[in-house]
Amino acid sequence: MARFEGALAIATARAGFFPQPVANAIAQACGRATFNIAALAHEARNAGTLAIPFVAALRAQVPAEAARYVHFGATSQDAMDTAAALCMKQAAERITALAVELGDSAAALARRHANTPMLARTLLQPAAPVPFGWKCAMWLAPLARALPHWRAAVEEGCVLQFGGAAGTLSAFRDKGPAIAEILAKDLGLKDPVTWHSARDGFARLGSELAILTGIAAKIARDVTLLMQPEVGEVAEPSGTGRGGSSSMPHKRNPSGSLLALEAAQRAPGLAATLFAELLPEHERGLGQWQNQWSTLRALALGASSALGAMAYVLKGLELDAAAMQANIDETGGLVFSEAVALRLSRALADRLCAQALHEKKDLREVMRSDAEVGARMKPEEIDALFDANKSFGAAEVMLERVLADWQANCA
Amino acid sequence: MARFEGALAIATARAGFFPQPVANAIAQACGRATFNIAALAHEARNAGTLAIPFVAALRAQVPAEAARYVHFGATSQDAMDTAAALCMKQAAERITALAVELGDSAAALARRHANTPMLARTLLQPAAPVPFGWKCAMWLAPLARALPHWRAAVEEGCVLQFGGAAGTLSAFRDKGPAIAEILAKDLGLKDPVTWHSARDGFARLGSELAILTGIAAKIARDVTLLMQPEVGEVAEPSGTGRGGSSSMPHKRNPSGSLLALEAAQRAPGLAATLFAELLPEHERGLGQWQNQWSTLRALALGASSALGAMAYVLKGLELDAAAMQANIDETGGLVFSEAVALRLSRALADRLCAQALHEKKDLREVMRSDAEVGARMKPEEIDALFDANKSFGAAEVMLERVLADWQANCA
Amino acid sequence: MARFEGALAIATARAGFFPQPVANAIAQACGRATFNIAALAHEARNAGTLAIPFVAALRAQVPAEAARYVHFGATSQDAMDTAAALCMKQAAERITALAVELGDSAAALARRHANTPMLARTLLQPAAPVPFGWKCAMWLAPLARALPHWRAAVEEGCVLQFGGAAGTLSAFRDKGPAIAEILAKDLGLKDPVTWHSARDGFARLGSELAILTGIAAKIARDVTLLMQPEVGEVAEPSGTGRGGSSSMPHKRNPSGSLLALEAAQRAPGLAATLFAELLPEHERGLGQWQNQWSTLRALALGASSALGAMAYVLKGLELDAAAMQANIDETGGLVFSEAVALRLSRALADRLCAQALHEKKDLREVMRSDAEVGARMKPEEIDALFDANKSFGAAEVMLERVLADWQANCA
Amino acid sequence: MARFEGALAIATARAGFFPQPVANAIAQACGRATFNIAALAHEARNAGTLAIPFVAALRAQVPAEAARYVHFGATSQDAMDTAAALCMKQAAERITALAVELGDSAAALARRHANTPMLARTLLQPAAPVPFGWKCAMWLAPLARALPHWRAAVEEGCVLQFGGAAGTLSAFRDKGPAIAEILAKDLGLKDPVTWHSARDGFARLGSELAILTGIAAKIARDVTLLMQPEVGEVAEPSGTGRGGSSSMPHKRNPSGSLLALEAAQRAPGLAATLFAELLPEHERGLGQWQNQWSTLRALALGASSALGAMAYVLKGLELDAAAMQANIDETGGLVFSEAVALRLSRALADRLCAQALHEKKDLREVMRSDAEVGARMKPEEIDALFDANKSFGAAEVMLERVLADWQANCA
Repeated sequence: MARFEGALAIATARAGFFPQPVANAIAQACGRATFNIAALAHEARNAGTLAIPFVAALRAQVPAEAARYVHFGATSQDAMDTAAALCMKQAAERITALAVELGDSAAALARRHANTPMLARTLLQPAAPVPFGWKCAMWLAPLARALPHWRAAVEEGCVLQFGGAAGTLSAFRDKGPAIAEILAKDLGLKDPVTWHSARDGFARLGSELAILTGIAAKIARDVTLLMQPEVGEVAEPSGTGRGGSSSMPHKRNPSGSLLALEAAQRAPGLAATLFAELLPEHERGLGQWQNQWSTLRALALGASSALGAMAYVLKGLELDAAAMQANIDETGGLVFSEAVALRLSRALADRLCAQALHEKKDLREVMRSDAEVGARMKPEEIDALFDANKSFGAAEVMLERVLADWQANCA
Repeated sequence: MARFEGALAIATARAGFFPQPVANAIAQACGRATFNIAALAHEARNAGTLAIPFVAALRAQVPAEAARYVHFGATSQDAMDTAAALCMKQAAERITALAVELGDSAAALARRHANTPMLARTLLQPAAPVPFGWKCAMWLAPLARALPHWRAAVEEGCVLQFGGAAGTLSAFRDKGPAIAEILAKDLGLKDPVTWHSARDGFARLGSELAILTGIAAKIARDVTLLMQPEVGEVAEPSGTGRGGSSSMPHKRNPSGSLLALEAAQRAPGLAATLFAELLPEHERGLGQWQNQWSTLRALALGASSALGAMAYVLKGLELDAAAMQANIDETGGLVFSEAVALRLSRALADRLCAQALHEKKDLREVMRSDAEVGARMKPEEIDALFDANKSFGAAEVMLERVLADWQANCA
Repeated sequence: MARFEGALAIATARAGFFPQPVANAIAQACGRATFNIAALAHEARNAGTLAIPFVAALRAQVPAEAARYVHFGATSQDAMDTAAALCMKQAAERITALAVELGDSAAALARRHANTPMLARTLLQPAAPVPFGWKCAMWLAPLARALPHWRAAVEEGCVLQFGGAAGTLSAFRDKGPAIAEILAKDLGLKDPVTWHSARDGFARLGSELAILTGIAAKIARDVTLLMQPEVGEVAEPSGTGRGGSSSMPHKRNPSGSLLALEAAQRAPGLAATLFAELLPEHERGLGQWQNQWSTLRALALGASSALGAMAYVLKGLELDAAAMQANIDETGGLVFSEAVALRLSRALADRLCAQALHEKKDLREVMRSDAEVGARMKPEEIDALFDANKSFGAAEVMLERVLADWQANCA
Repeated sequence: MARFEGALAIATARAGFFPQPVANAIAQACGRATFNIAALAHEARNAGTLAIPFVAALRAQVPAEAARYVHFGATSQDAMDTAAALCMKQAAERITALAVELGDSAAALARRHANTPMLARTLLQPAAPVPFGWKCAMWLAPLARALPHWRAAVEEGCVLQFGGAAGTLSAFRDKGPAIAEILAKDLGLKDPVTWHSARDGFARLGSELAILTGIAAKIARDVTLLMQPEVGEVAEPSGTGRGGSSSMPHKRNPSGSLLALEAAQRAPGLAATLFAELLPEHERGLGQWQNQWSTLRALALGASSALGAMAYVLKGLELDAAAMQANIDETGGLVFSEAVALRLSRALADRLCAQALHEKKDLREVMRSDAEVGARMKPEEIDALFDANKSFGAAEVMLERVLADWQANCA
């Protein structure tokens, strides 16, 4: 807020509303002013906005002759919203960097494991085999889509708020737009028309933060499921003090993924708050802008926690390709049932699968000793149906496409 | 958490798991232990739970021979949930007190203004007149219903969490229930079975906090609408530094009601988070209990802010009975149209209202000069239809009923 | 709504506002009236409420002389809210029955498997063994708590709405309360003061529906995780057309649990909507009561879908006790590490676990050949630490306590 | 779904998986197939997805020799998600048209009333005067920003879903991408990589629908506040059957705005549901995609209801410029206090305002008779401060900027 007030003084003076030295005195005070946070919070409760006690405290630290020009022509919400935009913009840089780090790790895994077979799992049941690298590409694809949206949301959401008392910059007569332009340039923000009561920019910021959090948590969901010892296909990186238990010495908890999942539980409700605040009363509302900075703050902290945690997890992810293969084998060939059905017929495949399940035999064995199958397929044709590496379909094409998208979007 | 760990040591020692002096040493350390909050937060991120670095820091402040008995048989979540319950219970006392204060203020207004006529307003349009006291009783009625629910939610939600590693108190063999009983008594909490993965108690706490916040905000909604200068029927209490504007000297903002409305914007999303966390995985989940204490904290702060603000507002509410009457008069008798329709017929009332609106005349005048009306009603009968005090219907009975409820529930 | 209007006519006539035969004519028409739903919906959009075209359509089916007494003294919201209450009350009976069915199934499983050992799992990692019956009791405990709350919410939330134009029953002068009493009795509902703008009852109904849904979905969460083939400890009941896949012949999807999980994804947002609607403007608001019936309907359908699906799943649940034991054995004794730590020390247990993990040996073997352990424990003492049945702690006590609670609450 | 299955058959046959006549037979059957909706719904509950009974019912309407090729290589979710995308795309056209209609109405009002002074209102209290046209431009600005976002969300969210059993199009070996391309072209949808478990596109669709709904409801909020008879500055268009009351003949309710406000109460919770569903388990999850079509449907219906209602309201909005001016005058010049403070000083303005309020005098009168003011300002300078038309600041510049944006975005 001090940064806003300082830049405001400079811009207003340049437009001729008061002498430049007065503005300089204000700007200097803004640079070094200190505040009693607890007292401000207490007074803000009475005042209905933090800006009023803040401006008062700032005025007290400005030379007497300049004091009346502090906050000249602006309104509380100008200072609050612009401060939120400045803070969010800084946070956004960190969030973007973490998202890029996460995406790069997923991309590296995708490349490295483009041919490592594992079970796909749908509705938590095994489906046909897929390459682990393809799975990583599927994690990456929504992130590659999200980054441009996120950057656009920051660009459009973290902008100057400057409308004055009623939103029309009435204090500055015809000089308002010029002052706004200088002010925006000085703060490094775009300069839209007043958005005191148009909260779409913050809603979209919240939405993209919730999406980024969800994308990170989706990876966490899968990692924690694959890390179940009975599945045992991946593990979070181990490290001192990570994932221990306060009661059980043997435990290795998915403590990184936990952070992403935790954040994803909170994000939908926080984003919903911003959607519910799209309709403030008239020119400035009762209770919307007043809390959006803190709601956005919670969303940004959650997103960076989730993205950072999963970037760390993917970077050091331990992978057990043998376990992946073993889990495929364990299904007794049943996960190739789609191929069987397409090659023969669904009815026949149903019968063979039922027989395999009932006799607890491998589906391939059942097929080899089945007369109807024998009449239609040679043994080597049967074998070909059960080769995981031949069942990847378009996985490689998709993987390359996602990596190309990522390359294009994160450069 | 220190309180939990201290009481745990005492209870466990009493059951014979280690010597009483060891327990005393731990309990004393718990009473005076200090913590480096920033360091704990940092390590908690790695550990996946605050409890692990907390217990480690506590152990370091306990005599060496007692250190291994700190946190004996308990799990992280036992400490975290019980600590949340203890904090919420304390917060609940304050919230209850503020709710009682708010209710008492509403009750006092209800009594004082049992016969002060004002416009009812439905869909933001004037309806038949009602007593302001009745309106206050309508504010009070849901609070009178909510207080018992809230108290029950605290009683059932702020309880001991004690299950140990897997939830079965396995460390204590057959002594678990006895230890739990002592522990609960010592902490002043109820002692239910393990609820590591059964988060209904916290969900209900959140729900009642959201309802209390909404009840306060409903009053705020009405006060702010009545305080519009064009309506001008009530005003928030004035006071130094309250409701000013940073740009406009004349303003008197509803800064108390603002706080309630702000909190009510956030409560639904926060409560929804608790509902979404009702389904943790297995015996202890990934990402639910880990953040519920902070979600409940936000809800509790919002509720107390809302209730406290509105208690203050109602206690000092300024009321302009003349403005209320003037607003009734301003409608030109149209708000008595229901009475006219019931006495004559809807079709006739529709015609009379249309005529009054079209000729911009008072409805009573229109009726007096209408032949059809004249044939069926005497002038004094017409007048009686337009007496606000005779149009209150069952208002008084309802008001008395609500006050009696309140008396019964807040004693 | 027709039921409300019919009962209203009877009650109002009894209070003397019009002749009893008129009321009888209205009541009879209400019993046999038919409506063009599409036309009503269309007109409702214009009118702002369904009640207006509904009352018009009803009047057209009433003898001319009675038509003007249809809806006498009531307001749209009286009809809409009371209709919602009547529908919800009927739905509540079904929901309660399904909840009881689910609870009884869980209770039966709890009893039957009070001594069937399985792994507890915390943070999706194995923890100490617990009886499966205890796990079922943990599913049951929140349901045993929820049923009384749910019944109370229905009792208090599904009530008569009767306030007339402004909420004061102004049309009936001093007869309002008497009419309300008759009306409520006739409809089988409680008779509170007007709650046009006090939506706490519906919010609490929504909250308890979300909690019931979450409780059912928590069971679904666990069943689907246990049903992963790599875990393979339980399976949903099989049946024709259940859980198949449109592409993969072998699949057996958790199609029952799916319904509960699906409903639990929607419930928090729906419940939040009801919390956000706690603050209607003045005596009747703009946009709250207008949609609550449909929000409650969605919540009720979700809850009954979830409860019904899980009652079916638990009733026919297939359980593989051998797989449960095998998964315990598979951990190489590590899940008994808490017992080891408590018996010896955390530091020593940490060392032994690390060694077992590193050498891929059974923890018991490691202990048997460890000198430090040998000095402190006899072989049979070591063995005792690894007996799942002796590690159940207070499981049985808790199980009995929950069953007793259930018995007391569902009778 | 039939459209998807028909196009799928054609595309697959073209890639050589079965003869073209078979595909034609399937496509023809898809064009004329009929379904027993109730039966499908019932079976879907058992099957866990609507697609399974749907495909079975479709197969029964296809010549025997073609039946086994129905749904060849696809999975349930392919059919469900693509069907949702097709429906949403069609809905999107209607929503876009309504948004354009709303925006055009707001733009026309903005132009027409670029110089009609009215009170700005902040925190529901009067602030400096602004042109009504500027207020309309402030309504329009977020819509001008939202339309491109909405179109992009439709373009990216309403896309082909085509992954087959595990997401890799395994049934089609290396022909998958080619089939997908033909299929997408035929259906008029984009062809991304599989998004079975990447729900960001639907989340963003939901987010933009919630934002559009909020933007419409913000206008409704203001219209309903301005339509309060005590304010009386605008009115919704009157029309037969619009805004009446079932109990009060005189009422004119804001029945259009009501629809927008109602929808805006529901949108945040629905959008939150989509955010909560960003993390399905593995390749296809349990309970997310299964309900997203219905959640999106509710959001789309809400958005079109809100936009359509407000387009109608703004198109026929009745405006009372005299009332607007009267409300400005009624403030006794106090809303010009910012100008006074900036011209003189905040301290002096505070004193003058307090005196005006205390003496119930017009602020201009107070200033004219004040010695300190007299020493610094001439009477005509004082008058100039109280000219609403000179207090508009940058309103015109902003208005033109928004209209230019709108022109550029809605063409």
